[in-house]
Amino acid sequence: MRGVLLHTPGDVRVEDREVPTIVEPTDAVLKVAAACVCGSDLWPYRGLEDVDGPAPMGHEYVGVVEQVGEDVQNVQVGDFVVGSFFASDNTCEICRSGYQTHCVNRQPGAATGAQSEYVRVPLADGTLVATPGQPDPELIPSLLAASDVLGTGWFAAVAAEAGPGRTVAVVGDGAVGLLGVLAARHLGAERVIAMSRHADRQALAREFGATDIVEERGDEGVARIKELTGGLGAHSVIEAVGTQESMMQAIRATRPGGHVGYVGVAHDVSLPGQELFFSGVHLHGGPAPVRRFLPELIRLIWDREIDPGKVFDLTLPLEQAAEAYRAMDERRAIKVLLTTD
Amino acid sequence: MRGVLLHTPGDVRVEDREVPTIVEPTDAVLKVAAACVCGSDLWPYRGLEDVDGPAPMGHEYVGVVEQVGEDVQNVQVGDFVVGSFFASDNTCEICRSGYQTHCVNRQPGAATGAQSEYVRVPLADGTLVATPGQPDPELIPSLLAASDVLGTGWFAAVAAEAGPGRTVAVVGDGAVGLLGVLAARHLGAERVIAMSRHADRQALAREFGATDIVEERGDEGVARIKELTGGLGAHSVIEAVGTQESMMQAIRATRPGGHVGYVGVAHDVSLPGQELFFSGVHLHGGPAPVRRFLPELIRLIWDREIDPGKVFDLTLPLEQAAEAYRAMDERRAIKVLLTTD
Repeated sequence: MRGVLLHTPGDVRVEDREVPTIVEPTDAVLKVAAACVCGSDLWPYRGLEDVDGPAPMGHEYVGVVEQVGEDVQNVQVGDFVVGSFFASDNTCEICRSGYQTHCVNRQPGAATGAQSEYVRVPLADGTLVATPGQPDPELIPSLLAASDVLGTGWFAAVAAEAGPGRTVAVVGDGAVGLLGVLAARHLGAERVIAMSRHADRQALAREFGATDIVEERGDEGVARIKELTGGLGAHSVIEAVGTQESMMQAIRATRPGGHVGYVGVAHDVSLPGQELFFSGVHLHGGPAPVRRFLPELIRLIWDREIDPGKVFDLTLPLEQAAEAYRAMDERRAIKVLLTTD
Repeated sequence: MRGVLLHTPGDVRVEDREVPTIVEPTDAVLKVAAACVCGSDLWPYRGLEDVDGPAPMGHEYVGVVEQVGEDVQNVQVGDFVVGSFFASDNTCEICRSGYQTHCVNRQPGAATGAQSEYVRVPLADGTLVATPGQPDPELIPSLLAASDVLGTGWFAAVAAEAGPGRTVAVVGDGAVGLLGVLAARHLGAERVIAMSRHADRQALAREFGATDIVEERGDEGVARIKELTGGLGAHSVIEAVGTQESMMQAIRATRPGGHVGYVGVAHDVSLPGQELFFSGVHLHGGPAPVRRFLPELIRLIWDREIDPGKVFDLTLPLEQAAEAYRAMDERRAIKVLLTTD
């Protein structure tokens, strides 16, 4: 089969690889219907995270179950399924409390890399959720989005306690931030302020339900949010970047007693204790327990209530994965979908 | 009148001072029935915070209303009242959301220092809560505790979401930590683990409802909490110290998805973003909005349901304030009550 390997920063290649097989009796192997490139894939691509290359890439996937291990009971060969970036048993106490990304048995969800024709998924019973039937092709981008960026934006909105009567600000206009806008609005937020200075992303933010756009960043961005909220700050702020600047922007844009939901993977971030203390905000986030939300997200997509697949503004065949990484790195694309046939 | 001034670190003096008078029409002046020394008073006393001496000290107080400004309506001359360390209007949007310590009009609650015979309290209508009548003398220590340490421990327990079915660990065995134990138990926590290595504080923690004592600190303390919680960590952790070590101990002792309620005033604390991200905990705290809880706490004390006054293990006349500071600094006393007559 063909699959993506990152050799060194910037060096993405599509190569012949072994088709994965069942290793543990709890595994499944999927024929990947679509995969994509994540903002977090850009960290090693840019050399900002170590690469132990050649490394198989990709952790977002939808596909059809091709094989299952003998202990697998919840999904069957032929099911169309959605998974996520961590595999979880969905039975331990942590999973049952809704934090499947911290499952006591967690492991990478796409064990052999999802930017590939086939992928092995461990703990298939806990990790995979089958759709009600074979999806119409136009649903596939949205189902793929549920696998990570939608689930992550959703978690951020829930962590930020977005809901009726609340004003939500969103720091970050990548796919996760944009889907945080969609989630916040779906959860009932009265006002959703997208922080973005790119016309195409602003337009998509508005399509997903943003009521206001703020172009300023850092302290100026914070000042604008305060202006828009009677001087108090937003009730809820979604942080979807992961830098020092974005975290401080999120904390400072939140009113005392308000909630920051942060899902940008923190890189070189250090939070000043005294400022955080006197801010009086709630802080919650981390790797999103996408699995918690998958059944509901699949239902909303299946019923055409939400269309998160719009974040994919470029579709390329798997063979052109290198161009997919370049387009995202250069911000020519918000998010690139890779087709496998 | 007599009142406490901190001249330089370690130099506490009781001196003659002017009796405060009404400055703003929203002020009240109280005859102080009892005041006390706070753990946070020790920071400038120890030279770990700047002292702009001679500085009036004390921000915890109960007393009888002696004078009110012309705009004051909710308390009357002769009322016995409890206040707290920040004055708040209790009408702004932030106050109404329960975060009175972040009131848009907040100012020091004991404007002229509470370790004194009289004190001026701004925004009296929003800040002071009257007791149902003149209290029996034995209730005064508990009502005084409500003014800060009980309200702060209570907020920490609420921020940590202590409640039925949850295991709560408490980092810090000062008055706030001990009253966090009391609060957690009152809020229904199933198990409350006090982290303390002092026999007298362990005994009081047990009296307040601690079910377990852990003497280890730092990483060893975290390991013990994990041992006691099936390897997962506590659902809720109260942080009542404010150092780097105590914050990290609290975060690391909390299970993914659990809640840290932190009320130790952060000194030289810097939280590593990546570790916090992958911990998956909720973090909330800051200066406690004691005012939110005062009506309920006064009721519980009045009805003899809780006896938080037990944290005062030394009572001295105001004239011996210097000894009160020494006793707390040297940890000979948990908390010292100062009487004014």
